[in-house]
Amino acid sequence: MSPKARSKRGTKAAKAWDGRFQEPTDPLVEIFTNSLESDLQMAAQDIRGSVAHVHGLERAGLLTSRETARIVRGLGRVAKEIRDGTFRAKASDEDVHMAVERRLTELVGPVGGKVHTGRSRNDQVATDVRLWLRDEIDSATEDLATLTRALLQRARTDLDVVVPGYTHLQRAQPVLLSHHWLAYAEMLERDRDRLADTRKRVNVLPLGAGALSGAGFRLNRRAVARELGFEAVTENSLDAVSDRDFIVEFLSAASLIAMHLSRLSEEIVLWSSDEFGFLKLPDAFATGSSMMPQKKNPDVAELVRGRTGRVYGALVTILTTLKGLPLAYNRDLQEDKPPLFDAARTIRGCLAVLAKMLPKLEVQKARMRDAAGGFSLATELADYLVERGLPFRQAHTVVGRVVGFCVENDRDLSSLTTAELKLFSPDFEPSARRRLSIDTAIGRRSLVGGTARGNVERRIKELERSVDGGGRRRPQKRG
Amino acid sequence: MSPKARSKRGTKAAKAWDGRFQEPTDPLVEIFTNSLESDLQMAAQDIRGSVAHVHGLERAGLLTSRETARIVRGLGRVAKEIRDGTFRAKASDEDVHMAVERRLTELVGPVGGKVHTGRSRNDQVATDVRLWLRDEIDSATEDLATLTRALLQRARTDLDVVVPGYTHLQRAQPVLLSHHWLAYAEMLERDRDRLADTRKRVNVLPLGAGALSGAGFRLNRRAVARELGFEAVTENSLDAVSDRDFIVEFLSAASLIAMHLSRLSEEIVLWSSDEFGFLKLPDAFATGSSMMPQKKNPDVAELVRGRTGRVYGALVTILTTLKGLPLAYNRDLQEDKPPLFDAARTIRGCLAVLAKMLPKLEVQKARMRDAAGGFSLATELADYLVERGLPFRQAHTVVGRVVGFCVENDRDLSSLTTAELKLFSPDFEPSARRRLSIDTAIGRRSLVGGTARGNVERRIKELERSVDGGGRRRPQKRG
Amino acid sequence: MSPKARSKRGTKAAKAWDGRFQEPTDPLVEIFTNSLESDLQMAAQDIRGSVAHVHGLERAGLLTSRETARIVRGLGRVAKEIRDGTFRAKASDEDVHMAVERRLTELVGPVGGKVHTGRSRNDQVATDVRLWLRDEIDSATEDLATLTRALLQRARTDLDVVVPGYTHLQRAQPVLLSHHWLAYAEMLERDRDRLADTRKRVNVLPLGAGALSGAGFRLNRRAVARELGFEAVTENSLDAVSDRDFIVEFLSAASLIAMHLSRLSEEIVLWSSDEFGFLKLPDAFATGSSMMPQKKNPDVAELVRGRTGRVYGALVTILTTLKGLPLAYNRDLQEDKPPLFDAARTIRGCLAVLAKMLPKLEVQKARMRDAAGGFSLATELADYLVERGLPFRQAHTVVGRVVGFCVENDRDLSSLTTAELKLFSPDFEPSARRRLSIDTAIGRRSLVGGTARGNVERRIKELERSVDGGGRRRPQKRG
Amino acid sequence: MSPKARSKRGTKAAKAWDGRFQEPTDPLVEIFTNSLESDLQMAAQDIRGSVAHVHGLERAGLLTSRETARIVRGLGRVAKEIRDGTFRAKASDEDVHMAVERRLTELVGPVGGKVHTGRSRNDQVATDVRLWLRDEIDSATEDLATLTRALLQRARTDLDVVVPGYTHLQRAQPVLLSHHWLAYAEMLERDRDRLADTRKRVNVLPLGAGALSGAGFRLNRRAVARELGFEAVTENSLDAVSDRDFIVEFLSAASLIAMHLSRLSEEIVLWSSDEFGFLKLPDAFATGSSMMPQKKNPDVAELVRGRTGRVYGALVTILTTLKGLPLAYNRDLQEDKPPLFDAARTIRGCLAVLAKMLPKLEVQKARMRDAAGGFSLATELADYLVERGLPFRQAHTVVGRVVGFCVENDRDLSSLTTAELKLFSPDFEPSARRRLSIDTAIGRRSLVGGTARGNVERRIKELERSVDGGGRRRPQKRG
Repeated sequence: MSPKARSKRGTKAAKAWDGRFQEPTDPLVEIFTNSLESDLQMAAQDIRGSVAHVHGLERAGLLTSRETARIVRGLGRVAKEIRDGTFRAKASDEDVHMAVERRLTELVGPVGGKVHTGRSRNDQVATDVRLWLRDEIDSATEDLATLTRALLQRARTDLDVVVPGYTHLQRAQPVLLSHHWLAYAEMLERDRDRLADTRKRVNVLPLGAGALSGAGFRLNRRAVARELGFEAVTENSLDAVSDRDFIVEFLSAASLIAMHLSRLSEEIVLWSSDEFGFLKLPDAFATGSSMMPQKKNPDVAELVRGRTGRVYGALVTILTTLKGLPLAYNRDLQEDKPPLFDAARTIRGCLAVLAKMLPKLEVQKARMRDAAGGFSLATELADYLVERGLPFRQAHTVVGRVVGFCVENDRDLSSLTTAELKLFSPDFEPSARRRLSIDTAIGRRSLVGGTARGNVERRIKELERSVDGGGRRRPQKRG
Repeated sequence: MSPKARSKRGTKAAKAWDGRFQEPTDPLVEIFTNSLESDLQMAAQDIRGSVAHVHGLERAGLLTSRETARIVRGLGRVAKEIRDGTFRAKASDEDVHMAVERRLTELVGPVGGKVHTGRSRNDQVATDVRLWLRDEIDSATEDLATLTRALLQRARTDLDVVVPGYTHLQRAQPVLLSHHWLAYAEMLERDRDRLADTRKRVNVLPLGAGALSGAGFRLNRRAVARELGFEAVTENSLDAVSDRDFIVEFLSAASLIAMHLSRLSEEIVLWSSDEFGFLKLPDAFATGSSMMPQKKNPDVAELVRGRTGRVYGALVTILTTLKGLPLAYNRDLQEDKPPLFDAARTIRGCLAVLAKMLPKLEVQKARMRDAAGGFSLATELADYLVERGLPFRQAHTVVGRVVGFCVENDRDLSSLTTAELKLFSPDFEPSARRRLSIDTAIGRRSLVGGTARGNVERRIKELERSVDGGGRRRPQKRG
Repeated sequence: MSPKARSKRGTKAAKAWDGRFQEPTDPLVEIFTNSLESDLQMAAQDIRGSVAHVHGLERAGLLTSRETARIVRGLGRVAKEIRDGTFRAKASDEDVHMAVERRLTELVGPVGGKVHTGRSRNDQVATDVRLWLRDEIDSATEDLATLTRALLQRARTDLDVVVPGYTHLQRAQPVLLSHHWLAYAEMLERDRDRLADTRKRVNVLPLGAGALSGAGFRLNRRAVARELGFEAVTENSLDAVSDRDFIVEFLSAASLIAMHLSRLSEEIVLWSSDEFGFLKLPDAFATGSSMMPQKKNPDVAELVRGRTGRVYGALVTILTTLKGLPLAYNRDLQEDKPPLFDAARTIRGCLAVLAKMLPKLEVQKARMRDAAGGFSLATELADYLVERGLPFRQAHTVVGRVVGFCVENDRDLSSLTTAELKLFSPDFEPSARRRLSIDTAIGRRSLVGGTARGNVERRIKELERSVDGGGRRRPQKRG
Repeated sequence: MSPKARSKRGTKAAKAWDGRFQEPTDPLVEIFTNSLESDLQMAAQDIRGSVAHVHGLERAGLLTSRETARIVRGLGRVAKEIRDGTFRAKASDEDVHMAVERRLTELVGPVGGKVHTGRSRNDQVATDVRLWLRDEIDSATEDLATLTRALLQRARTDLDVVVPGYTHLQRAQPVLLSHHWLAYAEMLERDRDRLADTRKRVNVLPLGAGALSGAGFRLNRRAVARELGFEAVTENSLDAVSDRDFIVEFLSAASLIAMHLSRLSEEIVLWSSDEFGFLKLPDAFATGSSMMPQKKNPDVAELVRGRTGRVYGALVTILTTLKGLPLAYNRDLQEDKPPLFDAARTIRGCLAVLAKMLPKLEVQKARMRDAAGGFSLATELADYLVERGLPFRQAHTVVGRVVGFCVENDRDLSSLTTAELKLFSPDFEPSARRRLSIDTAIGRRSLVGGTARGNVERRIKELERSVDGGGRRRPQKRG
């Protein structure tokens, strides 16, 4: 084609980039490469980013204030269409960025084509996804706080409930049910900590990196960062357009959240079984069976547990995609959004439904207490002997034999007389039998972190403050 | 068995726990459950933890100062045996904790059995692995700094080398080779940041949590924490013995490190191919072929890239193991160490070998520069038109046609006359052709993060300070 | 509630299971547990399964032929509505099964409630997903065949093109480009093999397993299996409702397909770089840059490579979900479909787009041949010496020195005189220099599997037969 | 270096490939690239492969029969040294292949250098790992059979034991305990099927592919294949040296095995809890607590469950490593062996320990039966109404109300009079109450796959035949 013929095609290309192309894109390729289905949900962020960019162009003298106003107004109208649901993407829109710009140009004319000055989709999409994720982290942090509040509320309510503490799913030592709920609150605190750490690395502006080497105009990136609430700007343009660490970090934090919820859910499933009988599920949070009329199933907890896979899978997806990519931007990176969006939606849904279900669980207090005694108090006897000077290993062995004797003869620990105890060790005195009390056992765990009531109440208060007052949630603050 | 018969077995049990057991453990079970092969490498940490615990027991009045001194001395001897390689584990030692205590008791007599007072293996192993990982994080942080220094040294050396910047592995725009090296330095900075964040959550003392409900004695946990350099103590005993979040966090940070190294390695492989010809590998860092005498292979880079799988696999391992476990300790958690140890060793090995190889790479400066020009300067023409007021989208289309014309007619951009350029757009003036210079193109990228030399030199200095001076490496500091 | 009051609620429950429930399901729970968004795509399979089940009920005397006809007709109408796009799911439909049955009952009245006799959603969903996956495996097998055909066509076309064979991305020995294409055809053959193996384990009927213990009626399951084209029936009801092995198997086979395509894509990316210059992408299968007018990017190949992560992630998702679930059905299993559906769609899309792109690649024959000679012929010299009796290890060392000499002195192998060669080994004769020919080197690889033309042509024919004739594609058939 | 100087270095190179190298390998690189620690366990396979290769060289006239005999004898001696444990690898041995060849040459002199004629490490290692894996598959298949036999033995023993069948971990319907064991036997049958399918693709000879393009000599590869028991030879040399599909396939099959064992282990953990009380663990297969003398923990089952992570991780490792590698051999592939070896060892250990533990489990028959009745018989009432013509959906609703009434009034289903039942539906007759029997409920599940005793006994016999007689274990055979 001659320069003439080329020019005849007019200056308005159908695609953002097809100036040098002579053949149209294959329709199958259009569908295959299109990301609109997934990235349309970043439209609000895309527009916010464009507004700040346009202000930057104005500051740099690349747009007049009139052009700026016109474009910003246009972007505002596009944003409104999106909010109202009247925005219509076209099949030819490759992605959310082109959809927005195409609509902008329809609304404001060719000046819309100036919005992309000094910008590439490479730094634009990185900016959008960081804005999107920052919002999402803030929402997920609030969701974590909401579930923590539900746990703290349960902890307040259940302060006089005793439950067996388990190791290896064997009854081990009695604990306050509140202490058990607080264990999950601690996990969620760490989850909020991690999100806060991740947020710092998310909240850095890549715009200005251009395609890969930096924009060719002297834009004031720090001013743009301030306008968009970013705490810093990226310092290397090649890195800026190819960095997806922050997505991996978020998905790793999300995997830990999912893992924690899978543990809580496993316990809800176990505890609402007939065999445990520790919890009754309210009808509103259980489902039935299409075949068995008697069933009341803990589906919510099961689904939360099952969806752990989804979040782990998202993490593996992005890690796989990033492996071995040379610098800088590669189209593979487009695949960062589906796992990110899906995982974020998944954990937020799980957090919300658990927060609503938790207060409705009916705790079967008597059944829990019945299960908490018996051999779970054996450690008390060993500690008793230790206080009398026996090395712990020997005390452990002595009490092991006491337990073996009871099991063999179908006796309870509490049924043993002092005389019988003395057969195992002369150090047993009548006071030993007084140690075989659930409440004494719990009360003795009053060192920091132990299950004694005073501890638990103090910790509830601290966590309430943490979850409400915001502030830093650092381990060292707890120490 | 009667109490008598039971007592006859003596107070010295063969295992730490077999008081109530009548049958010996099946030999296959002994092998299957034994963790010594893996956890022996935590012996030093186990002993440090025990020394601090013994001091804690003394403070609590559970050990006399004489007993304390005797045990601490004994632990010192065990530590020495381990350092000297004279320590011999026995088949009956289930794990490193029992091996150390068994040997201690051999050395100091039955008082050795007092070391486990107020402690369970559950809080003990959690303490050991946190101590081990804290050490490892510090070493890995230093390894990251070492590799960063190697990158910064390269960046200083290669300041006058120009290389094509790539997107989609297509030449895109010229950049300074130093800018390219710095992209990796930025990644490693974030890696150090992440390790620093993880370290805070690692550096919390679980000892005192006992088996799950807290030790039955009033131990001063904060004093123990201070002695061991922990910044805080865990606040919930159930959580303390079942929390392995910090391992997931570390493996996630390690996966990002591995991913970064896989990208660098991919580029070393590409660049040392005949086709690129950008790098020559020194003989000392290449290997040959057993069949083809001419081969000089970038095996080191390939292995670094390949070992990414190992680190990702470790992350999946621990995430899988943790999914759905009820509280508190479960034996599944023993499986936390093999992936942790393997991944830590893997990334440290990769960091070390790359740091040593990087300074030896022979940069083929001329070849790089030759590849950096040509159509990679097309953006310059588009920016030129934008400066003359053309909306970017139109400028892009115009230059696309210029490029298409050149490709079709086998012409270089720089060979076009102003007259020819004007056929595509009247806005082209003679000054346009002066823009087709690599050095001009690079020089114009002087906004923050751009590839202009001034920027790059400034950033080298900042990173040198960061990597040497230590200090906080927070994004906001860069902003 | 009294029996009376309960009965007053009428016999028509809103949900499939809420007879014993007194509180309505929480709206958040309804949304959280709903699977319609995902499983509606199994509607056709659900209806096919129901038709066969209804025939089974008729055979067992549980439905009259009139009832049967009425229900089957109703199901046909629902199927038609779905095909036509006039089917409307309701918010209260929990899943595709309830949506279909609800609509059926609207169409045929209460007799619709008989379709679920002797069936549970547990065996129903297992049946549906097996039917769906069987269809999908057949389609994916055809997609694999289509891509294989494209590779074979390329292999026919490129029979006289020579390309460097690489190891470690270093030029190693020359091969026919056709041989290179065939390597991928071999991979796809194995992929078809694996799908065929998986299909056998997919194609087993679980219907009749009921909720978990077997239906309470004597249904002839083999007859239902025959009607639905299943080769076998499940032999254990507990296993039947909880088995998702076949999904893991499929996703594992899909992961291998994705991995193969990632390798092919990596090569397309490399080969279409300026540095390799082996391939030109047609405009219709490349995309441009929004910033750099000169770019022509291999986005399709990059996206195929990037989507590997998505398929791997799906595999990890389902493996995670299944870990540690007790028998039999658990709601976690609902999470089997999103990863399955997404991965199947992903690999099918990738196969289709590559099959369409492959014939359009413009092979740069001269450039490939230029790259294929040189030191890649060094092995020929070593083999030459071996034929003269030198042990291979020595021959290798000798030729290594010859190469070292050439590199140092910037000489080509082919420029060496016999006299020069003799300085390295007296066994070199003038005939040695004749071995330094690309065509000779290729021709000598005529053992089975070697790159000699005869081999390649034979293998093309065999694979053409395999891919067209269908039939078993077993390794032993090739041996 | 001149040809002379080069030749002075002698013809015996220290490494297999260093003819053209002038600098020695960096010691860190030697350690980093060395694979001996991992691949030494393939020594026997390496030697078997070499013997067959040497026979092939003899047939091709490349070795005299005398040389052949000498080398084969030498290889035999190396094999013996390895078996006897007297073999000593040297630090300079890069891998098992070089260690064996180095020792061979020490034993037989320079003729040892002929063993590598027409072979590259690329095809050699592929051959070794296939031989190793074939052996391992055969052993794992036998281990699966052993565990299946243990399950079948339990199934025979427990034929009169009734246990609640669970869905959602809620009691659902009673089943025979034998039926429950058989569910796992079915899973293991599929596992053996999968290994058999995988074995076919493992059992293909790559030797002869050379470095990548085929050996340069006309070797009779089929004869070598026959000698080594391979069913086929690879048909494309590029594919042959880069194919690791068979490792992924095996690790995927291993992941399914691990997943199955994790489910069985989860149930052993649950069932041996105090709450379930269904199983007592023998002392020989339980372990105690270092702190709590009463504990008897199901550590074996927990570790089996926990090690699932290890096997999944291995699968992710190899998938990650393979992603995006260009053809043909790349050093990344060295990383195939650690995950393969570790996962194979892990599943074999798990299978063995479970097979030994299963027969020792003490089933608490009375407790199981007590748990199996009650509301688990509700389905029986619904089926009863269906037989009387009520549509299933209505029958389900009616019985749901009956259950709701019982729960509310703390009544058993079996305590309801016919008159009471009639309040819910007039279709209830006195015969309804006879349906509320565990044995009747089980007996009615006599369709194929149901839990009725006749079915279970038949299936035990079939599986016994399958596991003993070997033969094909295809789903269609069961149908």
